[in-house]
Parts: sequence; C-alpha cells; structure tokens
Amino acid sequence: MTPSLRNPERPVAALIAPDILASLDESPQDIARDTEEMHPADLANVAEVLPLERVADFLRTLPQARAAEVLEYLDEQLRAELLEAMNPEQAALLVGAMTPDERADVLVELEEETADEILSDMPTAARQETERLLQFEPDTAGGLMTTQFVAVSADLTVKDALALVREAARSGQREAMHAIYVTDADGVLQGVMSLRELVAAADDTHVADAMRSEVVRITTQAGRSEVTTLTSEYDLVALPVVDGFGKLVGVITVDDVIDALVEEQTEDVQKLGAVQPLEEPYFAAGFWHVARKRVGWLVFLFVGEMFTGTAMRHYESTLAAALSLTLFIPLIISSGGNSGSQSATLITRALAVGDVKVGDFLRVLVRELGQGLALGIPLGAIGFIRAMMWGSSAEVAAVVASSLVAVVLVGTLVGAVLPLLFRRLGFDPAVASSPFVASLVDVTGLVIYFTIARNILHIA
Amino acid sequence: MTPSLRNPERPVAALIAPDILASLDESPQDIARDTEEMHPADLANVAEVLPLERVADFLRTLPQARAAEVLEYLDEQLRAELLEAMNPEQAALLVGAMTPDERADVLVELEEETADEILSDMPTAARQETERLLQFEPDTAGGLMTTQFVAVSADLTVKDALALVREAARSGQREAMHAIYVTDADGVLQGVMSLRELVAAADDTHVADAMRSEVVRITTQAGRSEVTTLTSEYDLVALPVVDGFGKLVGVITVDDVIDALVEEQTEDVQKLGAVQPLEEPYFAAGFWHVARKRVGWLVFLFVGEMFTGTAMRHYESTLAAALSLTLFIPLIISSGGNSGSQSATLITRALAVGDVKVGDFLRVLVRELGQGLALGIPLGAIGFIRAMMWGSSAEVAAVVASSLVAVVLVGTLVGAVLPLLFRRLGFDPAVASSPFVASLVDVTGLVIYFTIARNILHIA
Repeated sequence: MTPSLRNPERPVAALIAPDILASLDESPQDIARDTEEMHPADLANVAEVLPLERVADFLRTLPQARAAEVLEYLDEQLRAELLEAMNPEQAALLVGAMTPDERADVLVELEEETADEILSDMPTAARQETERLLQFEPDTAGGLMTTQFVAVSADLTVKDALALVREAARSGQREAMHAIYVTDADGVLQGVMSLRELVAAADDTHVADAMRSEVVRITTQAGRSEVTTLTSEYDLVALPVVDGFGKLVGVITVDDVIDALVEEQTEDVQKLGAVQPLEEPYFAAGFWHVARKRVGWLVFLFVGEMFTGTAMRHYESTLAAALSLTLFIPLIISSGGNSGSQSATLITRALAVGDVKVGDFLRVLVRELGQGLALGIPLGAIGFIRAMMWGSSAEVAAVVASSLVAVVLVGTLVGAVLPLLFRRLGFDPAVASSPFVASLVDVTGLVIYFTIARNILHIA
Repeated sequence: MTPSLRNPERPVAALIAPDILASLDESPQDIARDTEEMHPADLANVAEVLPLERVADFLRTLPQARAAEVLEYLDEQLRAELLEAMNPEQAALLVGAMTPDERADVLVELEEETADEILSDMPTAARQETERLLQFEPDTAGGLMTTQFVAVSADLTVKDALALVREAARSGQREAMHAIYVTDADGVLQGVMSLRELVAAADDTHVADAMRSEVVRITTQAGRSEVTTLTSEYDLVALPVVDGFGKLVGVITVDDVIDALVEEQTEDVQKLGAVQPLEEPYFAAGFWHVARKRVGWLVFLFVGEMFTGTAMRHYESTLAAALSLTLFIPLIISSGGNSGSQSATLITRALAVGDVKVGDFLRVLVRELGQGLALGIPLGAIGFIRAMMWGSSAEVAAVVASSLVAVVLVGTLVGAVLPLLFRRLGFDPAVASSPFVASLVDVTGLVIYFTIARNILHIA
C-alpha cells in the first residue's frame, strides 16, 4: 500500500517523496547524502507532500543546520503543527539552528505556551537574541531584520577584513553576507562595503579609505513600506538597521524584502477589494476569521447603499410619473461606479509606487475631469441610442444620456479624490476600494439622474 | 535670480541642487569630488530637480561610469528627453557605459531613429551585445537579464576562481557578482557558488567539489512572473538565464526582479480595477492613451449592464404591481457586487501568490458557498428590518431579505469561480475585476429579486 501523499500540486516533490518514504524505512542514514545537492526550498516541498507523521522523521535524517534551513522554507501552517507536535527540546535545537529573524518569525506563529517552552530550552545567547527580536512589531524594520551580520572596524586593512569575512562565512553564518558594515567602538554605523567591493579592493588599503560612508539605513521602528521603498530605490541587497543612537543592530536581506513586498501588495489588493487584510494564505485563514474580515465592510457599504432607497423615496413622484426611468437606474449608477473604480485604482497605485503625491491634487483633478468627460460622452451617446431603441421618448433618452455623462464625470472625480484625501488624512488610500467608490457614486448618481429628469421632463 | 527647480517633492535633492547649480557656473571640476560619496540614486534625484537644460552639463562633470550609473536611476521620461537632446556620439558614450540590460532598456524608451543613431555610434562589441538583448521581449527573462556575469570552469581551484572574480570586480564590472557560475567548454551551466560560498571555501579545493550542481535557472523566453516566483521561492539574489541548449547567456539580478515584481503588481491592480495595464507612470502616460486603456472596459461593462434594462422590462408588470420594489433595487444588486468583489479579490490574489491552484476549485466553491451564507444572512436581516422601518409590508420585507441572501450568495460564488475559470482558460484571473463581477451580478441579481418577488407576492 502506498502511503497517501498530500498536496498533489507539487509534481516534482511528489515524484521524489515515495523514494524518501522508502528510504525512511530502509536506509534513513542515506537520505542526507542523497538529497545533499537539493535546494532547501525543494526539500521543503518534499516535506510538504509527505504524510504529516513522517515529516519529523525526515527532518531528523538531515544535519541540524540543513533541517533548520528546510524548516525556514516550510509552509507556515505545517511548520507550526510540526513544532507543536515535537518535544520542546528537539524543537528548540531545530529552531535554535535557524537564522535569528526566522527564529522569531516561527515562534510568533506558534501557540504562546509552545513558543515559551521552546524559547526556554534554547541556549541563553540564542534565547536572548530571539527575545530581543520578538519585541519588534513584525511589520517594522526591527521585525524584519536579522541580527547576524559582519561588522568590522575602519582601521582594518582590506586583507584583514576579508579574512574576517571568510571566517564568518566558514563558521556557518548564512545571512547578510552581501555587504560588510563598518562600525566604531560604540557600534555606530560608519560605512559599508559590498562583498564585491571588498574583493575588488587592494589588500593593503584601509577599510576607511575603501568604504562608502554615506550608507542608506533605516531605523528599527520604520514600517514595512519604507523598507521596500528604500531597497527598491537604491537597488540594495541588504539594508542596515540602526537604533535611535545610530548603532547598527541588524540587517534586512533582500529575500525578506521581497516577501515583505508581496505581503504588502496582498494587503493593498485586499483593501481595494473591500476586504480587511488577511494575514494568512487563503486556505490557512479560518472560515469565521475570513467572514469577520469581510462582514465589516459589507455591512458598512450596505448601510451606505441604503441611502439609494432614501433618494428614491424622495423622488417617488418623479418615478411614478415616468416609470420607464426605472429601467435605466442600474445602468446609470453602475457606469459611475465603474469609472470611479478605474480612477481610484489608478490613483491608489500611483500613490503606492510614488508616481503621484498628495501635492499633485490639482493636477490629478484636472486630468480626471478630462478623463471623466472623455469617457462619459461616448457612454452617453451609446445610452441615448439604446434608450431610443427601447422606444423611450427623445426626452427620456436625453435624460439618460446627460445623466450618464454627469455620473461618469462624478464617478471619475470621486474615485480620484478619495485616495488622495485618505492619504492626506493619514489613512491608507487603498481604503478607497472599488465597492466603496461604487456605493458613494450610486447614491450621488441617483440624485443626479432624478434631478436631470425633473428638469428635462418638467415633472415635480 | 534663483533658477527654477522642478519636482519640489524631493526635499533633500532640492536642498543640494542650488549648490550644484552654483558649482556648475563657478567650479564644475569640483562636483565629481564633492558628490563622490553620494549614492547614484540620490544624484539622479538631484538631476531630476535641476532645470532641464543643465542636466547634461551636470552629467558631464562626472566620470563617465558614474554618469552612466546616475542615468540608470534617472526618471525614464527625463532620461529619454536628455538623450534625445544630446549629440549621438556623447549619448553613445554614456549609454555604452551602462550595464548591458539597462542599455537595452534605455534604448527601447527612445524614438527609434535616436536609438539607432546611438547604437551605431557605440563600439562594435557593446553594440552587438545590446542588439542581442534588444531581440528579447522586455517582459521575458531574456529582456530582464544582463549579459555581464562571471563564469569559471569546474577544474579551477577556489583560489584561482577568487582571483578571477577579483579581477572582474576591479575591471569595473558592476553587476551580477553575487554568485559565480560554473560552465563547461560549450558554456553550458553546470554549477553555482555564491560569492559567500567562494570566500568560505578552502583555497585549494576545486570548484567542482565546492559548487552546487543543482542550479535554479530559467530560460530566456520565460515570462516575468516565472522570474519573480523563482527568485522569491528560492530566496535568490541572482537568477541565471540559459538558452535552449542549457548555455548560460545572462543573469537576472534581484534589483531587476524587485522592479519586475512592482510592475507586475501594478498591472494586476489595474486589471482588478478594470483598466488595461498602463506601461507608464500616471502622469507620464498620455491623456488619450489612458482614456483608450479605460474606455474599452467601460463600454464592455456598459453593454453588459444594459441587460439590467432588459431584465427590468421583462418584469415590468411585477414592478408596476409593487412599485415599492424599485426602492430596493440598487441596495440588493450592489450587495451582490460587493461580496463578489471580495471573493474575486481574495481568489485572484491567492492564485497570483500560489496559495490557491485551479485544482482547488471544489474546495474554493464549498468555502465561498459557506462565506456567501455567512455574509448574506446578516445583510438579509438588516435589510428586513430596514424594509419594515420604511413601512413596507412583511411580504415585501421578506422578498428583500431572501433576495439579499440569494444575491450575496450568487455574488460570492461568481466572484470566486470567475478567476479560477479565467486561469483555467489561460486568461489572466485579474480580468475578473470588481466592476466586471459587479456587472454580472447586477443582471443576475435583478432576475433573482423579481423571481422571488413574483413567488412571494403572487404577482404575474
């Protein structure tokens, strides 16, 4: 009987997994050697398709540092289950072998009791380092950084600095080796040399003369989006993190920046879809957790949309006098919502990537005013023809056409202004989601439609 | 009179720029030394606030390699204007000093005639290299890669390999030095060593014994999203690119991956907002270009939304019999659109980051069915109360409440299924934008509403 494998979406891993399972029973001592050349991310994929109860056995066949690396790439949920099922000492050994920043990330995912047990079983130095990192909010520079980096003093020669780096690399330090940092006796950051610059420099130069002293840096409290912006703007592979005194306390490596960028974008997209950001992957997030993240916005939008009813009651006599007006209500208000969504999306994204600033308000307004007209007029024309084809009177068709132009214009402006306004007030512009803009424009759109109808059709 | 500075949004650059302007007139020979320690990205910011006609003068004061670096960080539009205004030989010198991938990127932005002139003025080797890169689509691995990398043969010792790397670094090669690649006599990729691994290895080891032979690689034709996925999955700082024969032809560095990731995100967000992706930043894109990118979707959605009119005409007798039903139309259909937007956003993003696969169809369906009920029932309850408060009969309130539950359920399912369906059909799931889902659900919602109304209110 072949044991059942999970996650059939990983074809390569699923191919290798049966061999691993067989080896686990017959010759577990061979697994480390057989998989030596594989990338830890691929081994993590293999672990993800193994039956849950064999994953710990599999990790035990690997050298500890290797197992820790695999753990770093493992699916969060599986990792948490695995560590919670292990005995705390074994878990502490594994977690202790991870890089400091990953260690902290992993412990945050566990139940507090398990995390505490694992922490107390770690060697003192590793425990203290991890506890220090755990004090930072996960979405700040402090929460993203690792505390493993190579710092040298400015009076070293390049040769000695390179020797230090080689030693650090040989001692198994895995992270933040793309650059070496130059610090003074107090640990204050003074300069930086990339590993490339270090190997390029002449052996007898002093680090002080070869280093760059204007170092792009960030403070521990800075937010995730500052981290991603700086890294991308300066094309960094590692971003040094300093405390309030300018002391170098950690380094954020580019792989963590990429993860941060993806998370940030997920949150932005979810906000734009009127969902409060989920921290977990789709299936990992609990059913009621997701429902709670959605229901708030839905109810808020629902209550806002109730004003469409209020508006229509207000114009009940107009409606009764020209029932055919009803037919165009969804068409007209949705056109405003659609053009508004477009503008809101364009401006929100432009704000996020820095193409537009709050100070560009007037320029944006003028441009979107033009866009509103350029988009509203063709829709109005199509609407006019359609209304005539449905047998409406020329007056009703004119009401529909001019309402369309006006509603698209208003939608475009509302969609463009809201994100700028939110940013100005210190909120996230992505709160101006498509549904939010659409709801606002629905109510306004009805008022516009009925006002125009009353005036053109001369009804009370 | 102080010359006018552009772009007041760069406060630091704006502070330095007046000094640079003064130096340009008085002691241009000092500028290179005075700005030596600055990051080229910061110098580019300074260039961006200078009056346009002084930017070329400013670049001329810098050593050529430095000026080329600044050019790489410069705003695309300004860069194009600048190069088109320069004489072709000078432009060729500057562009020739850029890294090969940036060189190609810059030429693509120029008018074809200017680009050809600059190309023909470049040294043969640089020209041929650039022309080769220009053959790749910009959004493929070939279009993203640089052709500068260090490749060594497997029989070298670590000491000799390191000597080669130092030589390459000293010769001014700036890119793709985070790893060295091992190739055979035909240039076929055999292995990789990170610079860290190289400095960590013992001097007399052979590269063959120290290298990793399972190299994560990509082919020239692979798309941008494969590049970003591989880089992020394997935590790479450089991704080697091979041709159809496995020959190493280039390397994609992580800074270009970050740019690709941000661009990809922008496109996804714009699609989700029902805008065809703009390639340019908000203000850089021409007015009519943007309008064209928007009008297609708007008209498509408008035509789709016309079916709401068709549906309402179909139920005209129902409407006439119970006019108060009209009041709830926008409320009901928008609720379906909102819950549908939420689901579409969640699933589209989960597909993009790999949390959900097309094969998860059934799991997604079951989950969103549950979400639809969990979200629809509270909205139905609120809707019932609201209808009663507006003085509707209990029957009408019941119609509103049950329609809300049904419409939210349908919205949720449509929003969840569409992105999966699009992916399955080979389209981009992000096409299932909020406005698109809302339009679909508007029509369906009306049919549901009137069908329920007819049944509960017993009208024809």
